[in-house]
Amino acid sequence: MTEEKRPLILISNDDGAEWPGIRALTRVARTIGDVVVVAPTQHQSGKSSAITIITPLRSTFVEKKEHLTKYAVAGTPVDCIKIAMNSLLEGRKPDLILSGINHGSNLGLSTLYSGTVGVAIEGASHHVPCVAFSIDDHNPKSSLLYCLPFVERIIKQVLEKGLPDGVCLNVNFPKGAIKGVKATTTALGHWTNEYDHRVDPAGRDYYWLQGEYVSDPNDDTTDHYWLQRGYATATPCHVDITERAALNHVADIMKEV
Amino acid sequence: MTEEKRPLILISNDDGAEWPGIRALTRVARTIGDVVVVAPTQHQSGKSSAITIITPLRSTFVEKKEHLTKYAVAGTPVDCIKIAMNSLLEGRKPDLILSGINHGSNLGLSTLYSGTVGVAIEGASHHVPCVAFSIDDHNPKSSLLYCLPFVERIIKQVLEKGLPDGVCLNVNFPKGAIKGVKATTTALGHWTNEYDHRVDPAGRDYYWLQGEYVSDPNDDTTDHYWLQRGYATATPCHVDITERAALNHVADIMKEV
Repeated sequence: MTEEKRPLILISNDDGAEWPGIRALTRVARTIGDVVVVAPTQHQSGKSSAITIITPLRSTFVEKKEHLTKYAVAGTPVDCIKIAMNSLLEGRKPDLILSGINHGSNLGLSTLYSGTVGVAIEGASHHVPCVAFSIDDHNPKSSLLYCLPFVERIIKQVLEKGLPDGVCLNVNFPKGAIKGVKATTTALGHWTNEYDHRVDPAGRDYYWLQGEYVSDPNDDTTDHYWLQRGYATATPCHVDITERAALNHVADIMKEV
Repeated sequence: MTEEKRPLILISNDDGAEWPGIRALTRVARTIGDVVVVAPTQHQSGKSSAITIITPLRSTFVEKKEHLTKYAVAGTPVDCIKIAMNSLLEGRKPDLILSGINHGSNLGLSTLYSGTVGVAIEGASHHVPCVAFSIDDHNPKSSLLYCLPFVERIIKQVLEKGLPDGVCLNVNFPKGAIKGVKATTTALGHWTNEYDHRVDPAGRDYYWLQGEYVSDPNDDTTDHYWLQRGYATATPCHVDITERAALNHVADIMKEV
């Protein structure tokens, strides 16, 4: 493969460039393309599609070596993609945007809160195929080795076959071993005991986010269903959240307004 | 109307409880129902559906008067809804969740970044009808009076007719006057000159978010199209971002993985 023909792959995450997940993802991507990593300088867990508005953003060049250039941005995961697309990539459009590998699954309603998925949604808004990768294991020391052959094949397949415009992939790997990969939907559910409510020594309330996610156990289309059964899940997500099926109902409501 | 029959209305925003927009919204809602305001203690612009994970959350009781109870939460807009639903409402399910009124429109791709809309999406995940209100005017001193009759009628209509499960409304008011209300879609577009790239006295890059939003000028279904023409827009948004139309394509890709 000649230098010019290598695909351009932009990578970010929500934990920063030195975390094991993004290092593993970058290692795989470098075997396939020219990689630009633009990652947050600080942990950005639960940042969703948040952007920095009130303060200016700063980017720092970190290093350049064969098939790899790294920048750090003092902002959110979506800020990283925006600055990369607008400035750091110097006008080149990436062939693929990747995010992760996040330690901790991003399925069901967690998809909404995930900065890892936020990267992919942002990329989809720029008409670039994107894949967010997460693993159902919160321990950052857990090995990702068993996931990497799947990561490599997914990257190659998406580069070859593309994704529909505006659609990204949210991929979750099970803990420990992978039985296969399923195309899934986002499990809509809820958390039980979502907060641990405590009172501090001065009598003031505080709350720790916690809880277990519950979704329809009989719906065998969802990410939650298959991840629990040891399968990797790949859920297509659209940047456009308009619910067109509700337009007539809304028009009906607004007639009276 | 007897005390027991008044609907329970939960209100939040992304600016904090003392901003003109939420005060105006609360004033209208109090004429219709029992209102609980749970708003962030600090500005949360561009926070999307971000949640607080690594630190505990604190809530503070602010005041209680006729048909109005107020709390402040040191977190994101979505944190406010989560804590309200899990604790502050003491098990009562709201009949309606409202957000705003935000000074600054939230249309097109801005919908993704908006904490104002994040509130409504979160509420939809709890199966409660929700409406996010924004005005196409960044000046917090601009009068909202001309919007309030529309706010009142939209609240009453949504209470009466409901919204489909999982769907919320993203409402934007034009600046100055309102010609009518349109049921619209989210304009997919892009920003021109999205960042102003500067160099500080020490030679370090920094970036200010800016830019003008551009979308298809001929698409007369979108929020961007109608807001520009002086109409209020009401866009139904779904909490489920799964793109079911892409499931076969994803399954096809994953066969090779």
